[in-house]
Amino acid sequence: MATKQDVKVLGWSASPFVARARIALNLKGIEYEFLNEDLGRKSDLLLKSNPVYKKVPVLFHGGKPVCESLLIVQYIDEVWADSGLPILPADAYDRAVARFWAAYIDDKLPNQTPVLLGEADEATKAEALQQMSAALQQLEEVFEKCSEGKSFFGGDTIGYVDISLGSYLGWMKAMEKIAGIKLLDEEKIPRLVKWAERFCSSDAVKEVIPEVDQLVEFSNVLRAAFNAAASPSN
Amino acid sequence: MATKQDVKVLGWSASPFVARARIALNLKGIEYEFLNEDLGRKSDLLLKSNPVYKKVPVLFHGGKPVCESLLIVQYIDEVWADSGLPILPADAYDRAVARFWAAYIDDKLPNQTPVLLGEADEATKAEALQQMSAALQQLEEVFEKCSEGKSFFGGDTIGYVDISLGSYLGWMKAMEKIAGIKLLDEEKIPRLVKWAERFCSSDAVKEVIPEVDQLVEFSNVLRAAFNAAASPSN
Repeated sequence: MATKQDVKVLGWSASPFVARARIALNLKGIEYEFLNEDLGRKSDLLLKSNPVYKKVPVLFHGGKPVCESLLIVQYIDEVWADSGLPILPADAYDRAVARFWAAYIDDKLPNQTPVLLGEADEATKAEALQQMSAALQQLEEVFEKCSEGKSFFGGDTIGYVDISLGSYLGWMKAMEKIAGIKLLDEEKIPRLVKWAERFCSSDAVKEVIPEVDQLVEFSNVLRAAFNAAASPSN
Repeated sequence: MATKQDVKVLGWSASPFVARARIALNLKGIEYEFLNEDLGRKSDLLLKSNPVYKKVPVLFHGGKPVCESLLIVQYIDEVWADSGLPILPADAYDRAVARFWAAYIDDKLPNQTPVLLGEADEATKAEALQQMSAALQQLEEVFEKCSEGKSFFGGDTIGYVDISLGSYLGWMKAMEKIAGIKLLDEEKIPRLVKWAERFCSSDAVKEVIPEVDQLVEFSNVLRAAFNAAASPSN
């Protein structure tokens, strides 16, 4: 079993990508130290450990950095294969399918978030909402197929696709509140709405995904800082 | 051992992504049937087996489709773990590092190709060339670090990063010829240039990467077809 000193996560708590690493460690029962990255000024530790992308999360294990959230989750599953619950499926074909949908989630969802939360015109926002809703509709079908009537994409327990999509749930709910839109629509994606409730109430998840009001507040602070920086009077 | 009937690759021979699947199968010594996809009209088989992206390659194993070239290579390595050579490193940390650089290659290289081969203005092309050269420079450093004086990114034999980058070599050489640019520059990236020679002369690779002149011709045909379709007189 790893000691807390061995395992650290560098990140900030509002990031869905950082949440993935933390959920995976929780599922494996691995204690870790959380190092809070200063959003306003990238730390030397971040620049040194992820010089290519300079992004969080970075997982440190025995001092060595692992970057990119989905790669971190796979790494955690592989290194602690005998601890806690398996995250990726045991079967190679099922693993390929899970990796496909996790990549799909990152292909379709994150790019829409800044559009929906930003200053884009109504047509651009409507297009972003349409793209996001179409992806969620697709994932509703995937859930029906992959879960086989069970609670999660991964079956009876939270797996790779659950973590990949579930990490966005906080921001999806915040976007609904900020932009006055409906993403988790019971009429259109009833299975995903119920899945989201189960996911967020899991012990491995509930302390990791921030409260909606915190994210709304965080978004307001970010927007104010951005507007101040962009103001010609500064 | 899989029979040829069990394993099929749907693709077209000029695609670097399709080459990845074929090189991986060759390294494992797995016979497969190559199904040539008609570039002009997507086949029902493609639309049915990769309905989300409708892209080649698709690997069929026992009739079941696997999509996305890097996921296919991982799948091949996992399913035929005991055949031929290992593709991903045995150590979980090394695996995470290999996956990081393979993703980096797909992040940095493919987007520049259509710019360098297309009708963009000189400034846009110069920017694309600069981006591609910077990525290759980065990969020169990675090679020095990962290979530890051995022949390939993966050590003594071709591995995951080798396949990810090596699959582009045919198109890099074709781009040099078509656009009159230098990508594989011995003065700037001497290690990668020598690595490229070794990679392309490997038995698993040499029949898979098309000749430069074939790619140049293919590019001319594509450009002519595109211009004809875009012409207002049609």
